[in-house]
Amino acid sequence: MFRVVPDQELGCSIASTLEVIGDRWSILILRDAFRGVRRFDDIQRDLGIARNILTDRLQKLVDNEVLERRLYQSRPARYEYRLTPRGVDLSPALVALMHWGDRHLAGEAGPAVVLTHGACGEPVDQTFVCWTCDQTILPTAIRSRPGPGARKSA
Amino acid sequence: MFRVVPDQELGCSIASTLEVIGDRWSILILRDAFRGVRRFDDIQRDLGIARNILTDRLQKLVDNEVLERRLYQSRPARYEYRLTPRGVDLSPALVALMHWGDRHLAGEAGPAVVLTHGACGEPVDQTFVCWTCDQTILPTAIRSRPGPGARKSA
Repeated sequence: MFRVVPDQELGCSIASTLEVIGDRWSILILRDAFRGVRRFDDIQRDLGIARNILTDRLQKLVDNEVLERRLYQSRPARYEYRLTPRGVDLSPALVALMHWGDRHLAGEAGPAVVLTHGACGEPVDQTFVCWTCDQTILPTAIRSRPGPGARKSA
Repeated sequence: MFRVVPDQELGCSIASTLEVIGDRWSILILRDAFRGVRRFDDIQRDLGIARNILTDRLQKLVDNEVLERRLYQSRPARYEYRLTPRGVDLSPALVALMHWGDRHLAGEAGPAVVLTHGACGEPVDQTFVCWTCDQTILPTAIRSRPGPGARKSA
């Protein structure tokens, strides 16, 4: 008899992603990269993070190919950290975290930042879509099934 | 002269959200809640998390009104933890983290879980949308501007 083992197997993409970016500093460093804050000293000042922790987190993000290190000045050597395509692909996650905070934590003052569509200047929304039915769908309409990577054990 | 102070102020909704759910365990507990794993012992077994850490994280999520605690058995008293509407509203963030892992970390085997549209059984996508232009938009088309909550300092 086969059974699908719940954790590690099912839903493990969230756990794997958290292995890469799952601490608060890493996500804030990525947020800074999206905002164009890319140089060690600028990030350090912006986040008020200890230099050794920043060095460690940047190295981990570089090792995971989410950021890449580029020399921007040679004497003395100075580096900046830019999002790779894999890093840019984290924008839906960061936007979702931001919109949740805007809705539930920003309070009466409202959000500090509004993401807009460059072409028209109006706010950007984020939705689930079914391309087969060609419609946006609510979270409650989502189901799940084991994918090709769902390992089975005896 | 006014200037907009970069951190704490701009983009602080991501930082605030991470104050609530910004550790690996909290996000995995929320993932379990979405999957219907809601009872203390089931979550503990599923995640292999120490009981005292699980107690602490559940309490924090309840304090932040992301989960609510419900008695499901009275002798002995046993509780389960259900997503509040505020918790359900985290689904875009969890789906975004999952899809990123599917794309970049799942490897050749492919994703362990596929999220589908209940009505048709086809995979669910997640996109940015501009309702003014009535179109889906790419991350590169997104800009930002200070929102009503962007505090200014002299």
